[in-house]
Formats: sequence, C-alpha cells, structure tokens
Amino acid sequence: MNLKVIAFDADDTLFVNEPYFEETEKKFCGLMEDYLSHQGLSQELLRIEIQNLPLYGYGIKGYILSMIEAAMKISNQTISIETIEKIIVYGKELLEKPIELLDGVEDTLKTLHGKYKLVVATKGDLKDQQSKLHRSGLGHYFHHIEVMSDKQEVDYRKLVQRLDILPEEFFMIGNSLKSDVLPVLGIGGHAVHIPFHTTWAHERIDHKVIHPNFRTLEKITDILPFLL
Amino acid sequence: MNLKVIAFDADDTLFVNEPYFEETEKKFCGLMEDYLSHQGLSQELLRIEIQNLPLYGYGIKGYILSMIEAAMKISNQTISIETIEKIIVYGKELLEKPIELLDGVEDTLKTLHGKYKLVVATKGDLKDQQSKLHRSGLGHYFHHIEVMSDKQEVDYRKLVQRLDILPEEFFMIGNSLKSDVLPVLGIGGHAVHIPFHTTWAHERIDHKVIHPNFRTLEKITDILPFLL
Repeated sequence: MNLKVIAFDADDTLFVNEPYFEETEKKFCGLMEDYLSHQGLSQELLRIEIQNLPLYGYGIKGYILSMIEAAMKISNQTISIETIEKIIVYGKELLEKPIELLDGVEDTLKTLHGKYKLVVATKGDLKDQQSKLHRSGLGHYFHHIEVMSDKQEVDYRKLVQRLDILPEEFFMIGNSLKSDVLPVLGIGGHAVHIPFHTTWAHERIDHKVIHPNFRTLEKITDILPFLL
Repeated sequence: MNLKVIAFDADDTLFVNEPYFEETEKKFCGLMEDYLSHQGLSQELLRIEIQNLPLYGYGIKGYILSMIEAAMKISNQTISIETIEKIIVYGKELLEKPIELLDGVEDTLKTLHGKYKLVVATKGDLKDQQSKLHRSGLGHYFHHIEVMSDKQEVDYRKLVQRLDILPEEFFMIGNSLKSDVLPVLGIGGHAVHIPFHTTWAHERIDHKVIHPNFRTLEKITDILPFLL
C-alpha cells in the first residue's frame, strides 16, 4: 500500500455519539408515551427523520426539528407547548454533551501523527462536528476536518479529488459499513471497520463485506500493525 | 499580485439570500403580530438568533429553531401548535427557495475559470450551501466549496492552510465587510467588497475600510480588470 491520507470517521469511531442520541430518544419517548408505545414512537420518529434527510441533512438541529414534527404529528396537533419546549431543551443538551474518547484513540493518533496526513471525515452538521473535534482535544493530530453532507461514493470521490490524491492512496477507518466502508471500497480506496456496540437504524446493513482492501478489526489500535 | 486562489462568498454575492430571509421574517411577524409590533418581534428574534449562534451556528435550521423559541417566549408559552407548525413550513420553504443568480456572476466565473483556482467560501449550513451551489448550476466553475462554521481570522487562516497557499495568494470577494473583508485583510490577503442592497443586522459594521489590499466595487464583473 502506498497510502497518503488516513481518514477517521468521528462519531462512534473517535468518540461516543449514538448512545447520546439513544438517551435523547428515550427522553422523547418518555414525553410522548401517552400516545404510542416506545417502539411505535421510535418508528415514527425515524420515518420523519429519513423523510427530512434530503432537506435537513444529518446532524442534531435536523434531529430536533424532526422530533418537534413527530410530536405534532403523533399527537394529532394536540401536543402542549411545554412538550415542544422540552424537546428543544433536550436537543440543546444533546449539542453540549461531553466528549468521551473511545479506547485507544489517542494512542493511535499519537503513533500515526507525522507519518501520514491524518484527517477527520465525518457526516453531519459542520458547526457541531467542528465543535466536537475541538472539545475532544484531538484537533492537533489532524491536518483538517472534512465534514461531508453525505458519505456516498460521489462524496468520497470529491473528497479524494480535494485532497489531491488517488483513491488507492486513501485509507478510511470507521464504525459504519454503509458510510465508511462500502463507498470507499467502491471508489478503489482502503477501509477498516471498527464496530461500535450500537448503530443507528438508518446506518445498518445486513450483508457481509468481503474485499481485498477491507478488514474488520476489534479496536482502533489494531490498525497500527497495518500502517507502521 | 501573485494570486493562487480566488474565493467567492455565496449568499448575496453569487445568488440572492437575505431577501428570502426577510420575506420569511415578515411571515413570522405576521403570525405573531397580536403580541408585539413587527419591529419588536424582529428585535426579539434577532436577540434569540444571536444567543443561539454559539450552539447552532449559521444557517436555516438554526433559524427555524430560533423562530420557534422566539414564538414561545414572546407569547409567554401561549402560542398555538398550529403556529409552530406554520413556522416549520415557512422554514422548509426557505430551504427550497429557487436560486436566483446575481447579475454578471456567470460571466465573471466563465472568464476566470481555468486562470485561477476558484473556490466558494461560505458560512452557514453545509447541506444547505452545497445544495444551493448544486442547484445554481455554477458548481463546475469551482474547484470545490469551503463551508466555514464562521468567518473570523482564525477560520481564514485554517482555510489558507488547507489550500496550501500563503495569505497574500488569497483573494476574497463578498458582500459582507465584516465576514468577507476585514478578517481576510487581517491575515494578509486581498479582498473586494461588492455591496448588496440589504445586509443582515448581525453582519453590519459602521466604519469605513481603507487598506491597500482592499477595494469596493459596484458589481462583480468589475473585478475582472484586476484579475486579467
């Protein structure tokens, strides 16, 4: 391998994310449990989130707006203003969650720093992702952060072009087979999957990935033998 | 001048933006006029927007959330769910406004294309700005789009570093003295101000700018004599 750029997904690869969303969703379901079962509420919220994705994109602000919309819809417009207010408070709390680094992240970055150009390649809200990286204290290990509006092949092609490298010089590490692995392999790059214990329903895929440029590793430090 | 990158602001430099926000704000004030004068409503909305900026950043989704918050606050929590619903509809309409190119933009880009690396350097919401550039049909003139979470000196310094150029090789064109001109001059770059007929209150500055690397021009095609 002649690698030039090692890219790390952020959420649930560098630091905890999905559990915070799940915690917020639990609070949302708690607010709305007079109307539907928690399962029914989660399904309806997910449906509205996915419906709003083309307009809102990924990230917490769109998630707050989708929770408000779901609450209005599920209650048939009878939800109280106090509930809407609470949803906004929960959303703002989600925006300010502390950053909890995953095991081995700092050691991995410290070891690779100076040997490759390291970037963060993350989906989501620009402001939010920059703020999280800043608060993580990991910023100085990275050449820069690439916040992508989506992680499809076309987005990775643009990314590689912007980085002025060939796809085969690009190595991506992330927790989502759908977003961090398949499209990267699709354009001719290398990818490593580090599973996290929980994955957003919209990111799940149900088939196995087998490819010469791909491997699944248990923890992030396991990439070091391949890169040193 | 030994310029390498010419960067264009997007909103109200390449295409119409602020008038659409003003139109939405007028509709918001229409919804809320039982509570306060239009001027009082606008002031309160601006106050809440600015208060939320550190958390939400720039862009329409944060604007929608601030309108909802303002409506709840101004009405002392008595606003109806129907009003909240309308605010979300107005916000979604704002996200889907047609792209209206400003005069001379396409000619200017066509003329400069191939002679410099052209980029869009815009503040706001990633998804939203990428979608607007795509819909504008101008995307192919630009090497890429840089969506910045803010446009302060530190943000331009990072941008110039990411572009791998010196500040004096950077030339910025925009309609905001505060965001497109002063910080660029501050880091040693070149800037041109093309005033637009209306500017968001938060972007206004009330002093004159005089600097050897700076000029104000009336329309975007006026930059061509300086760059050819």
